[in-house]
Amino acid sequence: MGLHFLFPVLLNILLLSSSYLVVVLQMSLSYKTFNLLSNSGKKASPLVVALAYSSSFSSSHFSFLEKLPLYKENSNNILRRSLHPSSIIRQTISNINKNNNNNITRKMTSPTRLKTMRSPMKKVESQVNLHPLLCDPFRVTVIGSGNWGTTIAKVVSENTAIHSHVFEKEVQMWVFEEKIDGQNLTEIINTKHENVKYLPGIELPENLRANPDLLDAVKEADILVFNIPHQFLSRIVKQLEGHVKKGARAISCLKGFEVGVKGVQLLSSYITDELGIACGALSGANLAPEVAKEHWSETTVAYQLPKDFRGEGKDVDHKILKVLFHRPYFHVNVIDDVAGISIAGALKNVVALGCGFVEGLGWGNNAGAAIQRVGLGEIIKFGQMFFPESRVETYYQESAGVADLITTCSGGRNVRVAKYMAETGKGAIESEKDLLNGQSAQGVITCKEVHEWLDKCELTQEFPLFEAVYQIVYNNVPMENLPDMIEELDDFGF
Amino acid sequence: MGLHFLFPVLLNILLLSSSYLVVVLQMSLSYKTFNLLSNSGKKASPLVVALAYSSSFSSSHFSFLEKLPLYKENSNNILRRSLHPSSIIRQTISNINKNNNNNITRKMTSPTRLKTMRSPMKKVESQVNLHPLLCDPFRVTVIGSGNWGTTIAKVVSENTAIHSHVFEKEVQMWVFEEKIDGQNLTEIINTKHENVKYLPGIELPENLRANPDLLDAVKEADILVFNIPHQFLSRIVKQLEGHVKKGARAISCLKGFEVGVKGVQLLSSYITDELGIACGALSGANLAPEVAKEHWSETTVAYQLPKDFRGEGKDVDHKILKVLFHRPYFHVNVIDDVAGISIAGALKNVVALGCGFVEGLGWGNNAGAAIQRVGLGEIIKFGQMFFPESRVETYYQESAGVADLITTCSGGRNVRVAKYMAETGKGAIESEKDLLNGQSAQGVITCKEVHEWLDKCELTQEFPLFEAVYQIVYNNVPMENLPDMIEELDDFGF
Repeated sequence: MGLHFLFPVLLNILLLSSSYLVVVLQMSLSYKTFNLLSNSGKKASPLVVALAYSSSFSSSHFSFLEKLPLYKENSNNILRRSLHPSSIIRQTISNINKNNNNNITRKMTSPTRLKTMRSPMKKVESQVNLHPLLCDPFRVTVIGSGNWGTTIAKVVSENTAIHSHVFEKEVQMWVFEEKIDGQNLTEIINTKHENVKYLPGIELPENLRANPDLLDAVKEADILVFNIPHQFLSRIVKQLEGHVKKGARAISCLKGFEVGVKGVQLLSSYITDELGIACGALSGANLAPEVAKEHWSETTVAYQLPKDFRGEGKDVDHKILKVLFHRPYFHVNVIDDVAGISIAGALKNVVALGCGFVEGLGWGNNAGAAIQRVGLGEIIKFGQMFFPESRVETYYQESAGVADLITTCSGGRNVRVAKYMAETGKGAIESEKDLLNGQSAQGVITCKEVHEWLDKCELTQEFPLFEAVYQIVYNNVPMENLPDMIEELDDFGF
Repeated sequence: MGLHFLFPVLLNILLLSSSYLVVVLQMSLSYKTFNLLSNSGKKASPLVVALAYSSSFSSSHFSFLEKLPLYKENSNNILRRSLHPSSIIRQTISNINKNNNNNITRKMTSPTRLKTMRSPMKKVESQVNLHPLLCDPFRVTVIGSGNWGTTIAKVVSENTAIHSHVFEKEVQMWVFEEKIDGQNLTEIINTKHENVKYLPGIELPENLRANPDLLDAVKEADILVFNIPHQFLSRIVKQLEGHVKKGARAISCLKGFEVGVKGVQLLSSYITDELGIACGALSGANLAPEVAKEHWSETTVAYQLPKDFRGEGKDVDHKILKVLFHRPYFHVNVIDDVAGISIAGALKNVVALGCGFVEGLGWGNNAGAAIQRVGLGEIIKFGQMFFPESRVETYYQESAGVADLITTCSGGRNVRVAKYMAETGKGAIESEKDLLNGQSAQGVITCKEVHEWLDKCELTQEFPLFEAVYQIVYNNVPMENLPDMIEELDDFGF
């Protein structure tokens, strides 16, 4: 490799000394080079790489190069690490080899290349085209340590460990302290690296630090990830008031919304209002035990840049959130629509009750699918009516929308309770007692909140499925009436 | 009741003799009356009914009355049966009693009223506000007698039996003749009223007539319902050429499309092209055995009025199709978008293979939901790309869209074959042999057709899930690569 670094220097001299001819040469060569790299996946000669690189660097005619992921990655490396050109060439070539079958080539997948693609579980960590950080690395704290809280803390810690230029490696996780066989749960987590109570059998990263002191856990945090049961939120938020770093940002992994006298409030807005920090949400088709076992799934993160956004490289933005949450087994899409994913996350539980009823009645798959179809329609309508800024696409295209609905309706507490009601004739409260060990099915609470709100707006008849579920749960309406109750009247007088 | 028929006569005299005062009287009285009828469900005094009826009849000021279902039904009766006013009054009152808890009140559902709603299984037949028929009743023939064909024939025959003013009661069903214990299948169906071979245990209506002679079965048919396996379609259609009644209409219950040199062709368009008759489609979340057992489900019928539409009351339109297919246990929505429901019906089978793979790999519900989400997105994209007239809403709001996708991905041949491939490591063809008794999983054929078409258009990379399924089935690409193959690259360089 000894003399290879001379090529760009020589070429730049050449380029500076002429104009027209060189531009033509550059254009054809650099375009060919990148085509070659992208398509063949073969080792490119250092000469062509250098030529392509130099030419792209020395001329503004080549903005099309910026569209190529390889170029982006390399030019980003330049900014981030201020490497000597020769190192960049080496880096480029090594990237080509490393990424041989990676994203870069995937855009132009051919059957033979697909065969050699690696399993996602062994995937080399993706390199993200981040703006170089112009502030201290972000400190992350996860508030909550149930099975979903611990799982998200695991995901986040894995990412902070490998993206040390963006995040402080250590992640704090606030744990409600309890004794397990005489030992503190936090101590067990910090020594055994396992949450033996809420996520047994899953090894946690060593850079995840359990902390029983809420205020100590959050005091230096730049990013707060809320992942506690809905009913504890207001108490926790009250304790946090005045103790959160100014300019911190938050992501809520809670599902649901608050229905109060003022109307429907998103939990993320509640956090923003109470703590004065911008808050987004994370929601998706994510049964916690499956994510913890690193079975592949997808999720949606929604975050709107706040008015006091400090600028790229200085504040949390979509890229930072992607780097924080995306794992090879946990595919993240980041969008703006916080309302959409929150509405979907809350209302799916009501639909799941409907699915449980028809399943318990033995009506089969057609009926379950029909309930989900009607449910998706009412979720969209609810979103459009009360949060007109939410986008219809979020509901049918995001993991937090249709996919989460499908997962939730294929199992889980709400379906189990509703099915049991159908099979035994017992009421919701009794069924919850029999099945859930004192816990409750979220849909039972949500359908009541939704009914009360819609009733106040005189809009119950616009949401026949939500209303039917409420009437079945709270007013003993026979569930066999469901089809009749949700049938849409059409223009034909049916 | 003797003198009640005099009221309208007297009232009309009164009305003709004055103007302003009477209009005011009419307005207030008739509005109140109908409110009363709609809301209370109580017997109304014949006087007020007569008054309301007369006034609505004698004045054009009362177009708002036409919005009331009760009024529509009655005025329709008038047109259809030319009843004497006194009969109409009787009819109105009897309707009020009969429909006490029916559609009319459902629009204003209150919790207490919901309780008294009947089960859909016992539902009195809906009365449809049809234009009076100005031609002979439509004759219906079902072509095909597999389990889905026989099920649809049952549905249709039940409806022709009760809507004798719209349809000829007898429905012909073409049956591919075969011997069962020495007896003709058609004879068994026509005497035992059961398709012992393809839909055993289900009682068929007596007005459904099995016919082994294809041309005889169709020769007088105004409506042809195609419900045969895809691979027999071209042969059957060839036989039918020149033997179908001019101006007949068709509905295809076949799932799928033809991919040929010309591109993607809908099966309904194929029927139209070959036979010169307008053709719509029926598709939905309808596993045949469940519909046959009258378990509640939904479906979508799509039909576009042809250029030679003969006019309301003289030709098949959306209302006629609703009356033909809608049953209390089989809820029909009629739309225009034939392309949308056909595309969805074909491509869902490819998605189901993907679901089977991740299920067989033991990746759980999150992964299955993710495949369905990505699949729905690619179905929409495919539709928008090749049938831009299809509507996005069809895919996420109709039974033939998202609901059928969910049902198909929750079981059925495609999922079984794919799961078996994952569990045993065997190929698709071998798995089909092991599992399906010589039949095939439609997705295996469709994913190849789709691949070949997209490949020709150089668009395979735009449909990574469809392409991944094809590569797994036909090129032994490891299915563990699925997540990587379908991950969307985003702007962040992931």
